[in-house]
Amino acid sequence: MPDRGDLPRATVRRLPRYLRALEAHPDGSTIDSEAMAATADTNAAVVRRDLSILGFSGVRGVGYDVDALRALIRTELGLTADVRVAVVGAGNLGRALANYGGFDRRGFRVVALYDTDPNKTGDIVAGVPVKHLDDLISDGQTEGIDIGIVATPETVAQGVADLLAKAGVRSILNFAPAHLRVTAGVEVRQVDLSTELQILSYYRNHG
Amino acid sequence: MPDRGDLPRATVRRLPRYLRALEAHPDGSTIDSEAMAATADTNAAVVRRDLSILGFSGVRGVGYDVDALRALIRTELGLTADVRVAVVGAGNLGRALANYGGFDRRGFRVVALYDTDPNKTGDIVAGVPVKHLDDLISDGQTEGIDIGIVATPETVAQGVADLLAKAGVRSILNFAPAHLRVTAGVEVRQVDLSTELQILSYYRNHG
Repeated sequence: MPDRGDLPRATVRRLPRYLRALEAHPDGSTIDSEAMAATADTNAAVVRRDLSILGFSGVRGVGYDVDALRALIRTELGLTADVRVAVVGAGNLGRALANYGGFDRRGFRVVALYDTDPNKTGDIVAGVPVKHLDDLISDGQTEGIDIGIVATPETVAQGVADLLAKAGVRSILNFAPAHLRVTAGVEVRQVDLSTELQILSYYRNHG
Repeated sequence: MPDRGDLPRATVRRLPRYLRALEAHPDGSTIDSEAMAATADTNAAVVRRDLSILGFSGVRGVGYDVDALRALIRTELGLTADVRVAVVGAGNLGRALANYGGFDRRGFRVVALYDTDPNKTGDIVAGVPVKHLDDLISDGQTEGIDIGIVATPETVAQGVADLLAKAGVRSILNFAPAHLRVTAGVEVRQVDLSTELQILSYYRNHG
């Protein structure tokens, strides 16, 4: 079994989907790899291999213990305590993210929005203050920011990523259509909303 | 080789990522499966199997022809003509989507936003009119809507999905945290923005 900090990247990407499947199942029940696979949009062999990499075994003919597997995946994903999220960019996207119900429900707490526009700083969006970008470094160093979300125009995204790194943020989710350069030890994930449209387009084209 | 309308769902989900890899490569060049895999966040064996399912062959020791493969994947994804997109919900998320540069660049044209709020209808967002939801069915039937995006609160999402189906929309991208029931022949993809945060959280936890 590999060190769990060293799970294959493809396995890590599937863990949130397994967690969704498990959350839709009642406490105290069991689930088999076929049912997990159907919800997680993969196949049963992949589910069995991923869970075996995690060192988790099912019982033949019964399935996996839902409560135990849910707890294991939450622990692996670091979701046992609230995760503090800062959103840079208080435009439409930043405000939409501050309002996004799916974050709170999953333990991601947006603690602040940051912007440089004096018409936006001082606002309160969904209970979250819009602060000046100049406060980001000291906030990060004193209060701690676990994840930074870049919701700015493309032209300023790299500068924001540099500030986030200086603020001690080691995980960045980037919505700007720009490739961010970061130092080793900082993990960036790029969101491209058009990916989902492309997948839908396939089914429209072949439906 | 299976009918191409019947590609495995996991293969379809990887096609946009292969297209990103190919778009980052110069015209007239070749690319090998290792390089495709690195950009597409998978492994080379998966790349080779997917391309073989598409009926596309590389040349041993040389790689895949970038121009031809790009064209094939664009055709498979139905991206050879503009795709007409309607966004329902002209709140922060809907406006952010209308402004999202990544759509236009990939051939997805947001043709209208829809809302029921009289303070929003009549607005122009990023050049796109905000129309009343009552217009959706006739617009869909007369002008055609290829993809509908649900960017409304959870409570009204199902009603919007029903309207989209009546408007003849067969592909729906749903940002509302609600499971939508649709009739056969309508494809729904659910966007859960917290998935990416969960993946980042893993690396923060194990970094």
